[in-house]
Amino acid sequence: MCELFALNASSPTAATFSFSGFSARGGDTGDHGDGWGMAFHDGVDCRLFIDAGRACDAPLAEFLRRHPLRARTVMAHVRKATQGAVALANCHPFQREWLGRHWLFCHNGDLGDFRPRLDGPYQPVGSTDSEWAFCWLLQELRRVFGRRTQPPGWADVAPVLADLVAQAAQHGRFNLLMSDGFALYAHASNKLSWLQRQHPFPRAKLVDRQLEIDLAQANAAGDRMVLLATAPLTEGEAWQHFLPGELRVFEQGRCVWQQQPVPLITPADETTKA
Amino acid sequence: MCELFALNASSPTAATFSFSGFSARGGDTGDHGDGWGMAFHDGVDCRLFIDAGRACDAPLAEFLRRHPLRARTVMAHVRKATQGAVALANCHPFQREWLGRHWLFCHNGDLGDFRPRLDGPYQPVGSTDSEWAFCWLLQELRRVFGRRTQPPGWADVAPVLADLVAQAAQHGRFNLLMSDGFALYAHASNKLSWLQRQHPFPRAKLVDRQLEIDLAQANAAGDRMVLLATAPLTEGEAWQHFLPGELRVFEQGRCVWQQQPVPLITPADETTKA
Repeated sequence: MCELFALNASSPTAATFSFSGFSARGGDTGDHGDGWGMAFHDGVDCRLFIDAGRACDAPLAEFLRRHPLRARTVMAHVRKATQGAVALANCHPFQREWLGRHWLFCHNGDLGDFRPRLDGPYQPVGSTDSEWAFCWLLQELRRVFGRRTQPPGWADVAPVLADLVAQAAQHGRFNLLMSDGFALYAHASNKLSWLQRQHPFPRAKLVDRQLEIDLAQANAAGDRMVLLATAPLTEGEAWQHFLPGELRVFEQGRCVWQQQPVPLITPADETTKA
Repeated sequence: MCELFALNASSPTAATFSFSGFSARGGDTGDHGDGWGMAFHDGVDCRLFIDAGRACDAPLAEFLRRHPLRARTVMAHVRKATQGAVALANCHPFQREWLGRHWLFCHNGDLGDFRPRLDGPYQPVGSTDSEWAFCWLLQELRRVFGRRTQPPGWADVAPVLADLVAQAAQHGRFNLLMSDGFALYAHASNKLSWLQRQHPFPRAKLVDRQLEIDLAQANAAGDRMVLLATAPLTEGEAWQHFLPGELRVFEQGRCVWQQQPVPLITPADETTKA
């Protein structure tokens, strides 16, 4: 299995504090030591760092903990290899271009035998079920929005993506993060948490490292951001858990769209039958 | 204008020494201080670092000078913005996927009004003529090799690419590097040099920095590599200049394919006419 992290903010924001805690899970407080990746995504600007070592002590991870790169969306992944060898080609996030925007994708879980036909322009470079699923998602989005010459916004993408993700999630656990640099899409099958941060900012204490900061010092009063992680990164903050099957879209540091799975049997039906 | 650097080797090789000299051209010995990039490409493994600052003193460039990442193909670029703003989205190398391989592309020069129609799956994310040309090259390669399900090798790609590059080069200067992780393609319009290194390895002294190493200490007797740069990086080694319009392919540290432009008027014709 793997772990996911993301930040989505109203202004370009550093994630050094969060990544200090999260990267410990890559071989120290967690056994996800088979590679890691971190991406900074802000509109059309996209920089992706991947490494086949352990995030807890890789020199490149140390560089990213010490140098505050800023973006409106930051995404990170620590990997425990289940499908696909330990190799750079299998490190998340994966990246592809669609309609002049880079798309990034991270996955935690497993998709069993899910190998849909890839007859579009995207093919996996590595050997993970995750990258295969990413290629399929973009292929199907292209199919739906085929006539567009401009990239669709999240309001158009979200319901289509929710439907596609639900199809894939029938085959296994599909906890995922996906970004086009403008919106952050997140889906949980079984494990993903999120946290809204805004004025008044509290003090925050990491779960994975002896590190604590005053967020009011680190942020301006008007800043607003959302953090996502497989498991909460800080103590004493109001992390919320995704429901199984839930998809949320974040933009400018807030949740702008949400779809919860529709129960096939409602509680009322249950009562009637009983 | 910009400057290009590449290394292609028979085994995964570090480029810290060469990059120490080359990166000085990004704002110190050269005025190419509008962003830079460096990529390590080895089969399906591909890691790309880009930065909108100056390669001569950016912290990330210092990290790459100090930490010897290894790959069979290494590529770097320092940018002086001519078309497109100073922005991460406009930093080379550019990256796209085709048939399950990442492709990387760097350009030095300008392509004037060359804006061929892009009706395939690749669209530029930034605003440079370079990325536009790269999208067009891959679009046309896809068109030619459309029925393939496996990526074509360099022997198939090279003549097709040579023809495409010649078309684009009619519009301006098209000095370029392109890699699929297995072969390195290089074309010069007006300025590109290359150097073969193999046993017996000499001492090498950088042009741009007071730095000298004994290559026999840094390499094993069986190692073989080629270096490419807009202008020679070392003193006292036998750098060769590309002819205008020449395309070469490098694989496993040697030149495996070469196409020189066919003169429309041969010297004999000239004599006859005179």
